[in-house]
Amino acid sequence: MTFQQISKDPKSAARAGIISTSHGEIHTPIFMPVGTAGSVKAVHQRELENDIQAEIILGNTYHLYLRPGVELLAKAGGLHKFNGWARPILTDSGGYQVYSLGANRKITEESVLFKSHIDGSKHTFSPEAVMDIQRTIGADIIMAFDECTPFPCEYQYAKDSMGLTHRWLKRCIERINSTVPLYGYEQSLFPIVQGSTYKDLREQSAEFIAAQNQPGNAIGGLSVGEPHEDMYAMTSLVCSILPADKPRYLMGVGTPENILECIALGIDMFDCVMPTRNARNGMLFTTEGIINIRNEKWKDDLSPIDASLGGYVSTFHSKAYLRHLIINKEILGAQIASIHNLTFYLWLVKEARKRIIEGTFVLWKESIVKKISQRL
Amino acid sequence: MTFQQISKDPKSAARAGIISTSHGEIHTPIFMPVGTAGSVKAVHQRELENDIQAEIILGNTYHLYLRPGVELLAKAGGLHKFNGWARPILTDSGGYQVYSLGANRKITEESVLFKSHIDGSKHTFSPEAVMDIQRTIGADIIMAFDECTPFPCEYQYAKDSMGLTHRWLKRCIERINSTVPLYGYEQSLFPIVQGSTYKDLREQSAEFIAAQNQPGNAIGGLSVGEPHEDMYAMTSLVCSILPADKPRYLMGVGTPENILECIALGIDMFDCVMPTRNARNGMLFTTEGIINIRNEKWKDDLSPIDASLGGYVSTFHSKAYLRHLIINKEILGAQIASIHNLTFYLWLVKEARKRIIEGTFVLWKESIVKKISQRL
Repeated sequence: MTFQQISKDPKSAARAGIISTSHGEIHTPIFMPVGTAGSVKAVHQRELENDIQAEIILGNTYHLYLRPGVELLAKAGGLHKFNGWARPILTDSGGYQVYSLGANRKITEESVLFKSHIDGSKHTFSPEAVMDIQRTIGADIIMAFDECTPFPCEYQYAKDSMGLTHRWLKRCIERINSTVPLYGYEQSLFPIVQGSTYKDLREQSAEFIAAQNQPGNAIGGLSVGEPHEDMYAMTSLVCSILPADKPRYLMGVGTPENILECIALGIDMFDCVMPTRNARNGMLFTTEGIINIRNEKWKDDLSPIDASLGGYVSTFHSKAYLRHLIINKEILGAQIASIHNLTFYLWLVKEARKRIIEGTFVLWKESIVKKISQRL
Repeated sequence: MTFQQISKDPKSAARAGIISTSHGEIHTPIFMPVGTAGSVKAVHQRELENDIQAEIILGNTYHLYLRPGVELLAKAGGLHKFNGWARPILTDSGGYQVYSLGANRKITEESVLFKSHIDGSKHTFSPEAVMDIQRTIGADIIMAFDECTPFPCEYQYAKDSMGLTHRWLKRCIERINSTVPLYGYEQSLFPIVQGSTYKDLREQSAEFIAAQNQPGNAIGGLSVGEPHEDMYAMTSLVCSILPADKPRYLMGVGTPENILECIALGIDMFDCVMPTRNARNGMLFTTEGIINIRNEKWKDDLSPIDASLGGYVSTFHSKAYLRHLIINKEILGAQIASIHNLTFYLWLVKEARKRIIEGTFVLWKESIVKKISQRL
């Protein structure tokens, strides 16, 4: 995997780049649709490719490990073959899901023991196991196994947890270095910076992570309920430490506004369930602002979902038709809304990239953030 | 609307034809996917057109009347404009849905008073109102308002009901003849033969319906729980009476076997929710037989859903992947299974048509029915 920075915004830390993987190029800044269990919910792979023009999708190790399971994924020759997505895939490490299990998991130095949310069966994730699982899934980008701290988080807990995440990282790197890809293409490890909302911890963690000299780096433990100012402050701090010649991935972020602000801080990669989850509930992100399509005001609005956005479903279908589908719980409503929202997210990062290259990013960001954040 | 019979099977009553409408040609025998409330469930219009190659879809007057309602459909310029389906649409008359409401409807000579299944609000469907509603929906083919009798049905009830359906038909014809299409294209009325499973009533009804000389004719009140032998006997009898120069539509039928048997009896058009409803439950119709994809036996079967069928989703995705999606309630599972099953149904009638034209229909039917009806 290589990362080439092709342009740097003069007025912010934003940059445009290209990540090259065995499954193709990724033009950064990029948003990665979340394909939890091998499917971006309600969206077909063909639509991801042609309509949304996604360049990389995310898979969840926790979910894929439980179902369909590594045995079947190995037999299929990896997730790309299993789900028919030929472009790059990044898998998270399961750290976030395990953290979300709360009482149903026990963290020790060695590993995490957890109960499946599906059937209560017991499983163990160690750094080594999680590397092996991601090898078997066949991810192009493998995330280190970390502990994601909640917000708020006591200083001492955050510090101890960061230490654990760092020790686990060493074990992840050792495991990756002592094993080979299963399907003949390169798999790259991204370590994860932790440290909650504490500047000194974030600084320490970023320095530790930077020193590992892996192909890319990630920031975890944000977008877990902290104020946006904290998220931006931590992101800015960490970006100033992480090497500029490696891609930076901010995990689980966020709203369109969050994404543009964090691009300005030097982030290259994003993922979030928001565009698809909100779509299923009828909340649409458009170039004019945010729409709750369930509202009565859209009932007989026969104008396109988003005429300026372009893209088949957004220009072809009316707000009134989409509202009708969502209100009546027609599956097609979830399909159209999900395609639309993801098309918007990919449009947003592509547009940001264009402005960075043009050198007009900051001005553009200020004006577009106001427009797209307003509720219509 | 015109119907041209282009070929007649020498060994059965099967025929191949072309129905020409203002929204394009329909090659018969044809299967019409059911788009209840303006959407064929879990299938996008683009997939209907390109993957499934549907030539006409069905809409339900009862559902469309309640939601989105005739006011919005009129404002949109009809259902074609509202849902973006540019090919022909047939709407049922609401007779079947009203019959399904049981205690929540009251039938009089004048009309049917019923309560909405959504909010309990009271509504009236008269033959005149139902013609007006279908005019407003903008259907290419409008179904007469009838009473659909249940099975079993007392002789006297069936006889009286048939009389009512005939009197309502007269009112439907009068209404259609005294009104004009709203959107500048032709709308054609199909009367419906009733008479339950009584030969003399079916004979009387078919003669009455044939005498109305409408552009096409339909058979209702079958596939409501009666033995298949009764369905075939009634269909055969009615087809022998209905004019050969008009298309014949058997409402609500059925399994692949039912469809092939009724094509042999002279039926040209079919509709049924089975391919889409069963798809959502994981039951697949394939060229090799019927598959319950939820069964353990498909768990690691990485072969295509249906290699012989052709079509993108059926050859691109494996049984194991589709099983994984369906088991995990991923919406994409419903999408892929629905596209697959409808592709199969459209393949089936297209194949039947080809064999009719070749003169090999009956022999082909005997062999294919065994194959596609077996459970794998």
